[in-house]
Amino acid sequence: MSSPLTIADVGEFEVIARLKQRFARSGVGIVRGIGDDTAVLRPSPGYLVLATTDAAVEGVHFLRASTTPRLLGQRVLAVNLSDIAAMGGIPRWALVSLSLPETTPLDFIDDLAAGLGEEAARFGVGIVGGNLARSPERLVLDLTLLGEGEPDRVVYRTGARAGDRVLVTGTLGDAAAGLAVLLGDAPSGLPGADELIGRQRLPTPRVEAGRVIARSGLATAMIDVSDGLASDLGHLCEDNGLGATVFADQLPLSAAIQTLAATVGRDPLDWALHGGEDYELLLTAPSERVAQLTAAVQAVGVRLTDVGEMTERAGIWLQRPGGQREPLRGTLWRHF
Amino acid sequence: MSSPLTIADVGEFEVIARLKQRFARSGVGIVRGIGDDTAVLRPSPGYLVLATTDAAVEGVHFLRASTTPRLLGQRVLAVNLSDIAAMGGIPRWALVSLSLPETTPLDFIDDLAAGLGEEAARFGVGIVGGNLARSPERLVLDLTLLGEGEPDRVVYRTGARAGDRVLVTGTLGDAAAGLAVLLGDAPSGLPGADELIGRQRLPTPRVEAGRVIARSGLATAMIDVSDGLASDLGHLCEDNGLGATVFADQLPLSAAIQTLAATVGRDPLDWALHGGEDYELLLTAPSERVAQLTAAVQAVGVRLTDVGEMTERAGIWLQRPGGQREPLRGTLWRHF
Repeated sequence: MSSPLTIADVGEFEVIARLKQRFARSGVGIVRGIGDDTAVLRPSPGYLVLATTDAAVEGVHFLRASTTPRLLGQRVLAVNLSDIAAMGGIPRWALVSLSLPETTPLDFIDDLAAGLGEEAARFGVGIVGGNLARSPERLVLDLTLLGEGEPDRVVYRTGARAGDRVLVTGTLGDAAAGLAVLLGDAPSGLPGADELIGRQRLPTPRVEAGRVIARSGLATAMIDVSDGLASDLGHLCEDNGLGATVFADQLPLSAAIQTLAATVGRDPLDWALHGGEDYELLLTAPSERVAQLTAAVQAVGVRLTDVGEMTERAGIWLQRPGGQREPLRGTLWRHF
Repeated sequence: MSSPLTIADVGEFEVIARLKQRFARSGVGIVRGIGDDTAVLRPSPGYLVLATTDAAVEGVHFLRASTTPRLLGQRVLAVNLSDIAAMGGIPRWALVSLSLPETTPLDFIDDLAAGLGEEAARFGVGIVGGNLARSPERLVLDLTLLGEGEPDRVVYRTGARAGDRVLVTGTLGDAAAGLAVLLGDAPSGLPGADELIGRQRLPTPRVEAGRVIARSGLATAMIDVSDGLASDLGHLCEDNGLGATVFADQLPLSAAIQTLAATVGRDPLDWALHGGEDYELLLTAPSERVAQLTAAVQAVGVRLTDVGEMTERAGIWLQRPGGQREPLRGTLWRHF
C-alpha cells in the first residue's frame, strides 16, 4: 500500500494550481480571481465594502481527529459570514491563507477546499485569492471575507438607545450543549442530540435574516453571538454606554437543549447565556418596531425573540420569573 | 526583577483594546475601523478594489532571534504592499490576523504593532480590522491588504506581447546577498554589506513606481519579483504563453553586490537571477514606449532597466555578452 501524496511530494505550485482550478468559478464583481498579484474586484456602485477576518488554529479551535477537512473549510467561512450578517451585509469575496505542515495529505487540502467551495457557493461568495505557507506543527487557516452593504442600511454595534428592546434570532446555547455532548459531559443518545452537535460543528450564519433586518431599517444596533449572549450583550452595552435587563423566561431554547438539560440536571440557561459559538444575531430596536421586525425575519424562516431591554442604568441584569434580579456577568470567552 | 507582562497576564480583550487604540487613526474611506463585527469602508467611486494576503510564520519566514518585532510588523506589510504595487494600485486598508503563544510578552505585541503602524502611515494605509488567536508554538502573522485602482489602468500579469521589452525596477539580488551575509556565507564587514542586509530585512515596496507605471498606461504586464527574476519571469511567460530572453550584462546590480560577489568569488548573477525577496517590479512594454516609461519612473527616483525581450518561442534564455545562450530555468522558490 502506498502512502497518500502530500504537499511535499507535489510541491507548492501544484497545490496552488489545484486550488486555482477549483475556485476558478466566476462570481459577482470578480474582474480577476486567484492567479495575479492581487484579486481585482468591482464593488457595486454606491455600496460600502465590509471586511472581516477570522482564524482557525489546529489544536486550539479544532482537532483534526474530531472534525473533517470539509467541515473545517465550511466552518471557517461560516464564522466569517456571521460577521457580515451582523452588519446586515451581502457576502461577496474571500481570501484564504493556509499555513500547514508539508506532510499534509493532498486529499486533506482537496476536502478542505471542497468544504470552502461548497459553503462559498451556498452564500454566493467567490474565493478570489489566498496564500500558502509552511507551518511545521499546526494547520492555521485564516480567512478574510469581504462584503457589501448599503450606506444607509449597514447596522453597527452602536446606535442602541435606552428603552430599546433586545432581540435575538434562533435559539441560544445549542452549540455549547452540543460541545458538552461531544466532550462526553452529556449523553449522546437523546432526541435532538445530533442537532446540537450539528450546531456546534457547523453554525448557520444568519446572512438572510441579517439582510432582512438591515433592509427594514428597523434595528438600531446589531452584533453576532460568538462568545455567548452575556458576553456579546456586554460588548453591545459597553459600545453604547448603556446597560440591559434580560428576562430569563424569554430566552429562546430549543426542544433538544431542554431535553438534554433535564436529563443531566443542568440549568439550560447556563448554556444559553454563557455558551459560545451560537452565531445568532443579537440586535436592538424600539419597542414599537418589534412586531414588524419579527414578522420580517419570520418571513425568511428565522425566529426572532424579544429577550430584554436596554437601560440607562449601567450593568447587565438577569431577571427571573419571580422578579428577583442577579447581575449577569459576561463570562468572557477567553481565547487565551 | 519581575518578568514581563504577557498576553496570558492581561487577557485577550486588553490586547485588543490596546491595538484598537493604536490603530484608531482615521484614514481614507474608513467609515468604521477596528471595533465592530466588520470594518466598513467607502471605496472611491469608479475604482476597482484590489485584495491580497500574505503570511509570516515564525521559524519559517522569520526567527524571533534574528529580527525585531518592529521589523517583522513593517516587513509583513511591505510584502503585501509590493503586491498592490505590482498592479499599479493605491494601498488603502489592512486587516491583521495574529496567532501567537499566550506567553508572548505585551512589549513584543506593542513593538510589532508599532512597526505595522509606522509602515502603514508611510504608505497611507489604515489598519481597520484583525483577529487575535492562540497558537501554542509559533507566531503566525497573516495580513490582508486592500487597495484601489483605476479600471483602465490596473496592470495585470497578462497582456504582454512577443517583442515587448522586459524591464525591472531597482537592482536585483541584493536581498539574497544580504541573506548570505546574515547566514555567515559571506563576510559582513565589506562596504555596502549593511545595505544588502537592510534590503533583506525590510524590502522597499515599489508603490510609487507602480503608480507611475499604471497611470502612464505604457506597460503591458507586471508582476513583483518575490521568488527571484527567473521564477517570476517564468510566471509572466507562462501566463502570457510566451518565452523570454534575458541579457546577462544588462541586469541591474548594486555596487554592494558586486563588491561582495568579487570578494567571495561568486557570480553575482546567481543572486540576481535566482535570489528571492527583492520585491522589485518586473514589467513588459513595447520598445517604442521604453524611453518614456523609464523617464517617468526615474522621475520618482527609481531606476528602470531594460533587461530582455518577450519572445514568441517558448522557454526563458539567458544570453551572455559573447552571444552564447543557456536555458534559464526558474529555480522555483519552494516554500515547502
